[in-house]
Amino acid sequence: MTGISEEWVELAHDLADLARPIAARYFRTPLDIVSKADESPVTIADRTIEEAMRVEIERRFPHHGILGEEHGSVRLDAEAVWVLDPIDGTKAFISGMPLFGTLIACCIGGVPVIGIIDQPIQRERWAGVAGQRSTYNGAPIRTSGKTDLSDAILYSTGPEMFDDTPEERGFANLKAKTALTRYSGDCYAHALLASGHVDLVVESGLQPYDYCALVPVIEGAGGVITDWDGQGLTIASDGRTVSSGNRPLHAKALETLRRG
Amino acid sequence: MTGISEEWVELAHDLADLARPIAARYFRTPLDIVSKADESPVTIADRTIEEAMRVEIERRFPHHGILGEEHGSVRLDAEAVWVLDPIDGTKAFISGMPLFGTLIACCIGGVPVIGIIDQPIQRERWAGVAGQRSTYNGAPIRTSGKTDLSDAILYSTGPEMFDDTPEERGFANLKAKTALTRYSGDCYAHALLASGHVDLVVESGLQPYDYCALVPVIEGAGGVITDWDGQGLTIASDGRTVSSGNRPLHAKALETLRRG
Repeated sequence: MTGISEEWVELAHDLADLARPIAARYFRTPLDIVSKADESPVTIADRTIEEAMRVEIERRFPHHGILGEEHGSVRLDAEAVWVLDPIDGTKAFISGMPLFGTLIACCIGGVPVIGIIDQPIQRERWAGVAGQRSTYNGAPIRTSGKTDLSDAILYSTGPEMFDDTPEERGFANLKAKTALTRYSGDCYAHALLASGHVDLVVESGLQPYDYCALVPVIEGAGGVITDWDGQGLTIASDGRTVSSGNRPLHAKALETLRRG
Repeated sequence: MTGISEEWVELAHDLADLARPIAARYFRTPLDIVSKADESPVTIADRTIEEAMRVEIERRFPHHGILGEEHGSVRLDAEAVWVLDPIDGTKAFISGMPLFGTLIACCIGGVPVIGIIDQPIQRERWAGVAGQRSTYNGAPIRTSGKTDLSDAILYSTGPEMFDDTPEERGFANLKAKTALTRYSGDCYAHALLASGHVDLVVESGLQPYDYCALVPVIEGAGGVITDWDGQGLTIASDGRTVSSGNRPLHAKALETLRRG
């Protein structure tokens, strides 16, 4: 894709580098936990990391836009918009599970073209740039080639996500057809999908900062990520996502979810 | 407790050391996965680790008993019986999640007196010996002091575990009263409880090799682990477990579970 500057890719990595020591300092340390309106816990680390990332973006590309989980948005009509989730998986973070991640995306015209999923404690980084092979700690990665639902490992953040929603039956159908279903993955399940260890991840109710970074990582590893209607994700998608290791598996998953 | 030899504690650590490189060699590597009768996936790593551990126990203490997940039991009437789960959390293992653990226990008269929970990939080890302070990578640990259910973080392996069982309503009641519920923890959730990051873990259908190692680790950190009737766990318990950071919280959890 034209328009992606190498300096933006460098900034994405620098932002992830900057987040790591802050996350590590607060991980497994008693914290004051405040509740947001949507009841998800937020930590001091979350706010501190986003502040640090925003300062760095403003310093290097003051004309770029920013959409962050903690501090809202600026210049969403800019050429490039950074979409940030300092700690995706705050519930994992506060219970000492090292499976949360820092999510960093850069979007052009609303389409995610750079994505980073970084695990600060285990020092694992998945990176994707539109048109390039995605990497795990710098080494190229490839998604799974499993094309049958009956062989697939399915992850989803939690079963309650679908309770009393129109998606409930579709998800139950898909779960019944797959080999294995696991919960509580957050962004880490998507990262494992990009590396070929997980075959399907189905989510609902995600925000742009939860999914934008996943797109270049998964697509650049050979996988597919769309909404439940099969449309590619943009900053304005509805937050229902389906991620698959390959196109044939994706088509089967979408069909099963839709049949409801 | 009398009767625990320092040489047995050394053996427990040596068994965990021995498991680490084998687990690491097979982790995130394509495997032939076979299904057991109970449908849980079993890996080559699982079998290889248990074989290696049994050889070492037989070499050093040929009169001791062994109960393992993969290769059955010998000399269960011995003075000391080793209870082994080479890979607890095989579903995590096969999907690339570094949250499985190697569980090693030594029981005297059916009571677990030495326990190790080892995470081979992150190189984290929780160790407990009856009558001693439990440790995390060698440093003393203490469970959480939270005594109110409304502040508690609850873990459980998965919601399906309680579907259509007599425990279903009790678990739903407890879940409704706690601050946060998370799934897919396996032994790692118990280890985090021993370190004070998680407050409650409730399970059902566990086997002795799933829970024996947890007992000395949790009790030696100041926590409580019993069956759903409040009885201490032995090699012959019914596999329904409740683990808590402290006695007051444990009493409240048991009462809520029992009310059903």
